[in-house]
Amino acid sequence: MGVQINCDMGESFGLYRCGDDEGLMPLIHIANVACGFHASDPVVMRKTVALAARHGVAVGAHPSFPDLQGFGRREMKMGRDELSAALLYQIGALKGFLDVAGLPLNHIKPHGALYGAAARNAEVAEAVADAAASFGVPVLGMAGTHHETVYKARGLAFQAEYYVDLDYDAEGRLIITREHDAKDPTEAARRAVRVMEEGIATSIDGHEFAMRADCVCVHSDTPNAVDLARTVHTALRPWFG
Amino acid sequence: MGVQINCDMGESFGLYRCGDDEGLMPLIHIANVACGFHASDPVVMRKTVALAARHGVAVGAHPSFPDLQGFGRREMKMGRDELSAALLYQIGALKGFLDVAGLPLNHIKPHGALYGAAARNAEVAEAVADAAASFGVPVLGMAGTHHETVYKARGLAFQAEYYVDLDYDAEGRLIITREHDAKDPTEAARRAVRVMEEGIATSIDGHEFAMRADCVCVHSDTPNAVDLARTVHTALRPWFG
Amino acid sequence: MGVQINCDMGESFGLYRCGDDEGLMPLIHIANVACGFHASDPVVMRKTVALAARHGVAVGAHPSFPDLQGFGRREMKMGRDELSAALLYQIGALKGFLDVAGLPLNHIKPHGALYGAAARNAEVAEAVADAAASFGVPVLGMAGTHHETVYKARGLAFQAEYYVDLDYDAEGRLIITREHDAKDPTEAARRAVRVMEEGIATSIDGHEFAMRADCVCVHSDTPNAVDLARTVHTALRPWFG
Amino acid sequence: MGVQINCDMGESFGLYRCGDDEGLMPLIHIANVACGFHASDPVVMRKTVALAARHGVAVGAHPSFPDLQGFGRREMKMGRDELSAALLYQIGALKGFLDVAGLPLNHIKPHGALYGAAARNAEVAEAVADAAASFGVPVLGMAGTHHETVYKARGLAFQAEYYVDLDYDAEGRLIITREHDAKDPTEAARRAVRVMEEGIATSIDGHEFAMRADCVCVHSDTPNAVDLARTVHTALRPWFG
Repeated sequence: MGVQINCDMGESFGLYRCGDDEGLMPLIHIANVACGFHASDPVVMRKTVALAARHGVAVGAHPSFPDLQGFGRREMKMGRDELSAALLYQIGALKGFLDVAGLPLNHIKPHGALYGAAARNAEVAEAVADAAASFGVPVLGMAGTHHETVYKARGLAFQAEYYVDLDYDAEGRLIITREHDAKDPTEAARRAVRVMEEGIATSIDGHEFAMRADCVCVHSDTPNAVDLARTVHTALRPWFG
Repeated sequence: MGVQINCDMGESFGLYRCGDDEGLMPLIHIANVACGFHASDPVVMRKTVALAARHGVAVGAHPSFPDLQGFGRREMKMGRDELSAALLYQIGALKGFLDVAGLPLNHIKPHGALYGAAARNAEVAEAVADAAASFGVPVLGMAGTHHETVYKARGLAFQAEYYVDLDYDAEGRLIITREHDAKDPTEAARRAVRVMEEGIATSIDGHEFAMRADCVCVHSDTPNAVDLARTVHTALRPWFG
Repeated sequence: MGVQINCDMGESFGLYRCGDDEGLMPLIHIANVACGFHASDPVVMRKTVALAARHGVAVGAHPSFPDLQGFGRREMKMGRDELSAALLYQIGALKGFLDVAGLPLNHIKPHGALYGAAARNAEVAEAVADAAASFGVPVLGMAGTHHETVYKARGLAFQAEYYVDLDYDAEGRLIITREHDAKDPTEAARRAVRVMEEGIATSIDGHEFAMRADCVCVHSDTPNAVDLARTVHTALRPWFG
Repeated sequence: MGVQINCDMGESFGLYRCGDDEGLMPLIHIANVACGFHASDPVVMRKTVALAARHGVAVGAHPSFPDLQGFGRREMKMGRDELSAALLYQIGALKGFLDVAGLPLNHIKPHGALYGAAARNAEVAEAVADAAASFGVPVLGMAGTHHETVYKARGLAFQAEYYVDLDYDAEGRLIITREHDAKDPTEAARRAVRVMEEGIATSIDGHEFAMRADCVCVHSDTPNAVDLARTVHTALRPWFG
């Protein structure tokens, strides 16, 4: 199976708009759909699932810590039990819309601070694994972190991501920011191709490190997300399945 | 099929406790489980589903207007589309916990102000029907109101309820209050039996009116709910299926 | 005292942006600042108060029903006591930021569905009056409705508003919509001047009706709000105090 | 000035009840009143302020991380700016009710996980200090932690607390739990008296350590809170101012 482009989707809320989902959906393979805890609401979720269905995009759940004001980018200390319950709730809510639309749940990808916490903290990754195991779906995450070790140890399918629109530090760790800056599409595509061809990525300060990627992530709230996704999509076409 | 006792369940929230679910669960046939919009949270939902499973109680969704502070007892004006989406979200979230526990979704019963609004307003009942039709499950409601007419017109299974712990006005309409008072268990059981035997109920001011009941409802937040449920359970045993 | 331009301000939330507050603030006299129940959050509130202070704009509270997802544009049935408490909470929260900035609370203007409900329902207007009386400030509202009659009967200062970016129906009633369309600035300014000169406004279907205005309102979430505010500001300059 | 008994108050929410505020209010000197982020709502806040006023109890704000489901007992990572804004919001909301009741804001005491975080993390304590400095009121906290060092360095009045219903570990650190167990009132009173007379407290494993206390705290959600407060109140009477 080839590389896939995934994108965080459906992150509008009420009257507030976030991301050009209509523009991005034709350019991606799998959508990580917000579940109402960091963004989205039931109306947005139903609409996002319908949009994905129209474009044949596979839909996964993108659950978060309960933090609408912070867009899920503020870490919270939750016990494994209450965290896994919060994830089941969100995934179930999305699966309700998928059931009605006749679509399967494709995967789970934790959002924002939860993503970062699961990478660093095995207990948090276990809670994500609890939820994923309950629904029997793969988890997207960062290679070489607790995402990989914990999910694999639990017998879950794990898909490693490379972020084309975020930076990595000298140790190869993803730098997660509250707001995303525009990135040069050509440079992003060049980097993505290098990861495909050589398995090497470059940190923000110029160091090279090994990077394995089953999928490539674009954020819908990056200012030039559609341009970036289109350029990356075109460049990665040889590696699609 | 005989009469069934249903009860609103799982209405605790965080550290706050509401209702003696452990005491009530052995006395009922079907549980209307709160979905987090008027009460409950993911931890409470998982626990409530597990408790129901242990007692062989069928579980339905008890969705609400989004109003945690008002316990879902304050009416909100929501359009049919956004209301049905809010219901799908809640039902899906509960169904997630049911899927994981290997239980089916048994029914839907709208909560509080949503229940009252659907009885009076066909558009609201249609939104409930939209959600129920999506999942193909029966709806519990009040006979002779839009609950009955709308759900039946949509081809949905409808189950008429009689409330043993609430009062009815002279026109036979349910009087929904923000907080529930204790009721005399013997009197409640006597009334329930009369509905079974004669199909007649009595209003708060002494008028008699026709009452048909496929199921009988007890509220878990009525102060003496367990006593009341036990007495009613014993009295109605001859009519159980 | 002359006519004043007021504008709903500070309606961003978390990462979500709403309205060009920086562009609008120099063009208005008084800001109705959201208090976190329909929009805004503590960070946005502090920033909005600071922005108003920099431009010498007077700040009033713009409280709402508790409905972040619906942007306060969905009516809720709340009792007078719980509604007035909800208003005191929001106004107090804003006043905290004003106290710290050394600014007085200038007025109260109910938002969205609460504004509409207070116009139609005396009990709702009384709850608004309860809150305004507690802080001893004027209330902005619609002339000829319960806004005017109730606030005046309570001895509160009342300021009548004319909306340059919304339509009125044949009976002279404001048409409140969930989302606002762009309006022609020149036409809006022409209408505002006619209200000043002749006290006459025109309904969406061409009927004329009497309109008295102590202030003129522009919405920050109207797509061309800055252009519109600038044109109206220039046209109304002769009537400023 | 003598020692004072303080108590966390007004922690009910909607229909959910927490603590016997009516029973406790006559037994305490100062109330730390919840502000809606970990517990309480506008109706409860207004009622709690009125109850305190009736008993001549001084009222302070008891702000929290935004975490109603977790009762503010789950730590969140918030930046100093957004945290101080969140505190100003909550304190302002409470101060609104105090203004209306003609009462001053007496102090600030951070709640739950925020209390613990401020003790351990200077940046969090600075955010609390930012809010307290804005309103010019003392802060209650734990002696020998960042509460004391940061607040004093900022020139704020600091009042050290001793908790009669919680345990301390061998290093003299408070053990904060999600739910509180009943404590023996006589033993609690004996401990409180020893802190007054000798300035010595005992850890859960029997170690003695120095304890200085300007005030003594009782939690309203400790199961036998009223008995405990009454016994402690009687025992500490010689040290009241």
